[in-house]
Amino acid sequence: MEFYHGGDIYSQEILWDHSVNSNPLGAPEGVKEAVRKSAQICERYPDSRCRSLTRKLAERHRVPEDAVLCGNGAADLLFQMVFGERLRKGWLLAPTFSGYEQALTGGGVEISYLALRKEEDLQPDVHRLIGQMSAGWQDHRLLRQQSSLFFCNPNNPTGLAVERREVAELAAFAEGAGIRLIVDECFLDFLEDPERYSMVPELERFPHMVVLKAFTKIYGMAGLRLGYCLTMDRQLLKAMERVRQPWPVSLTAQMAGEAALKEEAYRIKTRQVVREGREQLAQGLKALGFWVCPSQANYLLFKDLRPGAEDGRLGKACLEQKLLLRSCQDYHGLDGSYYRTCVGQKEDNDRLLAMLERLYGPQS
Amino acid sequence: MEFYHGGDIYSQEILWDHSVNSNPLGAPEGVKEAVRKSAQICERYPDSRCRSLTRKLAERHRVPEDAVLCGNGAADLLFQMVFGERLRKGWLLAPTFSGYEQALTGGGVEISYLALRKEEDLQPDVHRLIGQMSAGWQDHRLLRQQSSLFFCNPNNPTGLAVERREVAELAAFAEGAGIRLIVDECFLDFLEDPERYSMVPELERFPHMVVLKAFTKIYGMAGLRLGYCLTMDRQLLKAMERVRQPWPVSLTAQMAGEAALKEEAYRIKTRQVVREGREQLAQGLKALGFWVCPSQANYLLFKDLRPGAEDGRLGKACLEQKLLLRSCQDYHGLDGSYYRTCVGQKEDNDRLLAMLERLYGPQS
Repeated sequence: MEFYHGGDIYSQEILWDHSVNSNPLGAPEGVKEAVRKSAQICERYPDSRCRSLTRKLAERHRVPEDAVLCGNGAADLLFQMVFGERLRKGWLLAPTFSGYEQALTGGGVEISYLALRKEEDLQPDVHRLIGQMSAGWQDHRLLRQQSSLFFCNPNNPTGLAVERREVAELAAFAEGAGIRLIVDECFLDFLEDPERYSMVPELERFPHMVVLKAFTKIYGMAGLRLGYCLTMDRQLLKAMERVRQPWPVSLTAQMAGEAALKEEAYRIKTRQVVREGREQLAQGLKALGFWVCPSQANYLLFKDLRPGAEDGRLGKACLEQKLLLRSCQDYHGLDGSYYRTCVGQKEDNDRLLAMLERLYGPQS
Repeated sequence: MEFYHGGDIYSQEILWDHSVNSNPLGAPEGVKEAVRKSAQICERYPDSRCRSLTRKLAERHRVPEDAVLCGNGAADLLFQMVFGERLRKGWLLAPTFSGYEQALTGGGVEISYLALRKEEDLQPDVHRLIGQMSAGWQDHRLLRQQSSLFFCNPNNPTGLAVERREVAELAAFAEGAGIRLIVDECFLDFLEDPERYSMVPELERFPHMVVLKAFTKIYGMAGLRLGYCLTMDRQLLKAMERVRQPWPVSLTAQMAGEAALKEEAYRIKTRQVVREGREQLAQGLKALGFWVCPSQANYLLFKDLRPGAEDGRLGKACLEQKLLLRSCQDYHGLDGSYYRTCVGQKEDNDRLLAMLERLYGPQS
């Protein structure tokens, strides 16, 4: 199986990369300065336990230090969950981030898909998800055996978020059924009101739930690789450490992470830029005749409604102009007529809309 | 099981770290400059296939590009070998680098030890190793099934290297027996005549052999995390990629790696500094009454010969003076009376010898 990812600006010539969901403002100056500082001490091994960074993350999220585990990007931690627990079954939304499928496939895990409905704008319905998983109950002895549900909130590529009280119902079901729930909040900090959605305050109530977080997106640090997970299940974190090398997080990433945590004003500024850009881009795309998913995040899923658009012609035409969109053809439940674009700053959005108008307008 | 590693300057106050086998000159300026440059573009995802760096490594080692796989340090690749191949058996020298044991244990792999002999100064005898593995042949159905031998050359912690023609015999045996041979050459560039030892020119002749290499040590880049492996077995590399995230190597590490490959003069200078420092340190340690392993590398294994030294008293006394040695108590076949020290620059070696004389001299 081949997996595709955004951000591949290396195998083709790209001037404008809209395929990656990073912070439209790039990395804050404090993060860049930390990277430069790390150059002077790069001969040192990093702290294999990321103690200083972990302490700050624990303070920030008000959890014990031993409930935090850092990794070489959030994607790295997904593989450690799969191999550390020797998972045998994974439930996935369809569509959702392909990284879960990649990790589960790597571990030889059986995957079941929970299809989201286009007539509901691909919004997850927690009650129906629970019903779908319960329906398999009679047949599926695996329901209670090394089983897992990866829940991306807000979901990727839709940008739709589910409120905490609803995710809590899912978490309660998962605790009851013995299903490991992994709530991926890598894009949650882009939401306008993250507190309404985050499951971090519920970690004690659901002791087997894992919350996954990344620095990659909100702090513009994709190149440095840094993510972490939070859970009260220390056994799981120990099992994850057993299947990975002792120094997964570079010194540079640890220093940059600590610098990033000081950037509160940057996070607030980012949310404002994203909100304005998202509204501009969504209106523009709708005006051009695309279907647009009502995203709350820093990226937008849209669909080329022309007949035959499944062949990805729009994405290819953009690529000829050296602009890269994220084709969603490899997402379960979508096809080549769906694209994801990041929300950029105003001039980025203007450029994208102008190009789409040129390429798309006459034929619609 | 607990694993120990050098370089833990984070859980204790250390002024002089002799526990890590890095380049005594630190990182070259070109590497530091590359790290600083990476700060400006750290919001980009790294190339998931490390194409530019891989191309340069392939040129350097005269192998095809698809025979190279980069990782987040060499230790990262060890875990991918274990999980990618679903190894069931691992042969290890005793003593040798504990990272193999850690990776094999993480994968639930059965381990057999090939003990090196103290009366032979812990020098590996290839013929005896082959004999030991063959002896298990009758009993061991696993010999031909997902079985592996990790061979560290020069070995860690001894610093003893085995010449290519002898390693080639081991490789021939391994090819015949269906044992995956991994030759770890992470410290090979510190040897005075690396060409006499490296198995890279033999990769075609032994199509299932893997050669593991690191940037960590010779270029003083432990904090950045970058290693790679070479093999003609493309199936193995594909299997390793399936059990890891798409972006294991940071943008910073890729840029630093490319810069490092230009540092030919630095490598030559390093070898000279290491040779002089090793001779100084070995003579000094012998003069103080320690047994010293005749290392060819940038580190020295030595033994405190006093009665009761197994309790690690010398290391603890050094630690009180804020100097960190690598205690070898966790190495199979050694005990707490053995220590490893890196070879430093002259003033580092002087300081170490003076401290050991103060702590050790009067009691010997």
